Amino acid sequence: MRPCLEIVSRPWIIESNRMTKNASRNIGVLHPGAMGVSVARSLQDSGHNVGWVSASRSAETQERAQGLIAFDSLDEISVWADALISICPPHGAVALAQRVHATAFSGLYIDANALAPSTSLRIGEIMGLGAFVDGGIIGPPALQPGTTRLYLSGHHAAGVAEWFSAGALQAIPMVPAQKKAQNASRVVEQHVAASMLKMSYAAYSKGASALLLSANALAEAGGVTEALHAEWAISAPSLLKQSQRAAQTTSGKAWRFEGEMLEISETYSDVGLPDALHAGAAAVYERMAALKDLPPQELEAVVASLLRG
Amino acid sequence: MRPCLEIVSRPWIIESNRMTKNASRNIGVLHPGAMGVSVARSLQDSGHNVGWVSASRSAETQERAQGLIAFDSLDEISVWADALISICPPHGAVALAQRVHATAFSGLYIDANALAPSTSLRIGEIMGLGAFVDGGIIGPPALQPGTTRLYLSGHHAAGVAEWFSAGALQAIPMVPAQKKAQNASRVVEQHVAASMLKMSYAAYSKGASALLLSANALAEAGGVTEALHAEWAISAPSLLKQSQRAAQTTSGKAWRFEGEMLEISETYSDVGLPDALHAGAAAVYERMAALKDLPPQELEAVVASLLRG
Repeated sequence: MRPCLEIVSRPWIIESNRMTKNASRNIGVLHPGAMGVSVARSLQDSGHNVGWVSASRSAETQERAQGLIAFDSLDEISVWADALISICPPHGAVALAQRVHATAFSGLYIDANALAPSTSLRIGEIMGLGAFVDGGIIGPPALQPGTTRLYLSGHHAAGVAEWFSAGALQAIPMVPAQKKAQNASRVVEQHVAASMLKMSYAAYSKGASALLLSANALAEAGGVTEALHAEWAISAPSLLKQSQRAAQTTSGKAWRFEGEMLEISETYSDVGLPDALHAGAAAVYERMAALKDLPPQELEAVVASLLRG
Repeated sequence: MRPCLEIVSRPWIIESNRMTKNASRNIGVLHPGAMGVSVARSLQDSGHNVGWVSASRSAETQERAQGLIAFDSLDEISVWADALISICPPHGAVALAQRVHATAFSGLYIDANALAPSTSLRIGEIMGLGAFVDGGIIGPPALQPGTTRLYLSGHHAAGVAEWFSAGALQAIPMVPAQKKAQNASRVVEQHVAASMLKMSYAAYSKGASALLLSANALAEAGGVTEALHAEWAISAPSLLKQSQRAAQTTSGKAWRFEGEMLEISETYSDVGLPDALHAGAAAVYERMAALKDLPPQELEAVVASLLRG
């Protein structure tokens, strides 16, 4: 089937009316976890048809994805979809793009994962840069307006942002600053500005959580937990609560934060800045990976998982 | 002279009345920077004679140390002092202890530097563990009560804490938890509990500043500084101000924070926890070392120093 479909490739370029603001599109979300489903709901709220691949997914995901159009395989959704949005753990993003590339898909591919700009560019090269939009999501799954933003960069960023005309998720195209668009490397950089923003943001937010949990683990290993918490009560009274919150909010996600920290470390390395901070954060989250399928854990349990190694 | 003095060694053990709360002692501070002078003032306020070594020190330090008893050399102050307190950059602490050990000094040696417990133990072994008190200072130079604490551990921690009966600096002896004092490694650990507390505390406080400055540098390298600050304004409104404050408060001290981060990394490694986070923080502060003799720097200048490499 593939050669046939390639004749009518890039429908989002050829059929310009399909790019107008109010047109309804067929959009596949790969693969809907909590975040992906919230993106899918915002697209539905904006009038689009949203599909997913239901084969081999858990009962929990089946439940979560109710109301989305189910396809049996990547091949099937690829024929149907005008666009695919990739929302998956960072370490699986390139492989997913390669699998999509092996299908008949000829639409716009939006990678919305937490990736180093260089990794996102690799995906862009796999899919074809002209058919690729770079994205980065900041915030929790978008269940209500105002919590979560999808930043978009690349040639079609503004057009894709218009797809999110309603719904909880706010889509923000990143407009290149003219003064900076002076050389080829800047042009490439602007293609993946959304990923760069996501990396810079998560560098602190998720890096600081790793650092804080790690400091608690060090104190426990050295027998000074009580003394540390007493000193914090005097000089940094928010840190114990922040530690407890970091434990609860990261314990179940640490298994995929490891990959995100490695992407951030790669980003630092790519621009010639010291990259060890986030290699270290990756090592911290790696030790928490076993907490994946458990409910949110208390600080003591997270510290214990760090000390187990 | 040394053999003679060794006959009357350990005066703080032999002459028990000198260990009573209100006795006036001869205490040397090595070497008084802003923090050291504030410790010296608290000892003076508590009725002690406080000395320092004035040779080869800057006019600024001479000015700062006015009112302290000046000695020409380590040899001279070592004969005079009942106790010496070491307050110096972390990377110089072991060498200073070795230099003191080479004098006729026979009193109590208090290392109050930001050191890995294992480094502090090395100093304890140089000076003799029975004549050694481990310390860790948390807070800025103690100019007024309530801002700064000197934690103390080791056999004579409680006695030394009593020397600080008045003055701005609060001294806190760390009392071993009985239930934990079960084996030899715990006993050693409790000897350097103050250093362990200092490492755990600074792991987050100084680590987070390095992380935040580093995130700003990454955004600038990638051309997304404005976008990052705009996102922070929505979802983490304190971070821009925190970044600006971190730049101003760390720029002049980064040259010695590098060593402190390496001590923290060593502490993690010693207890079998991932140590790369603080090796990374050391690399960040290393890039800021050239800001040492300048006034507090703005965020933009610190980011520029990080990007210069």
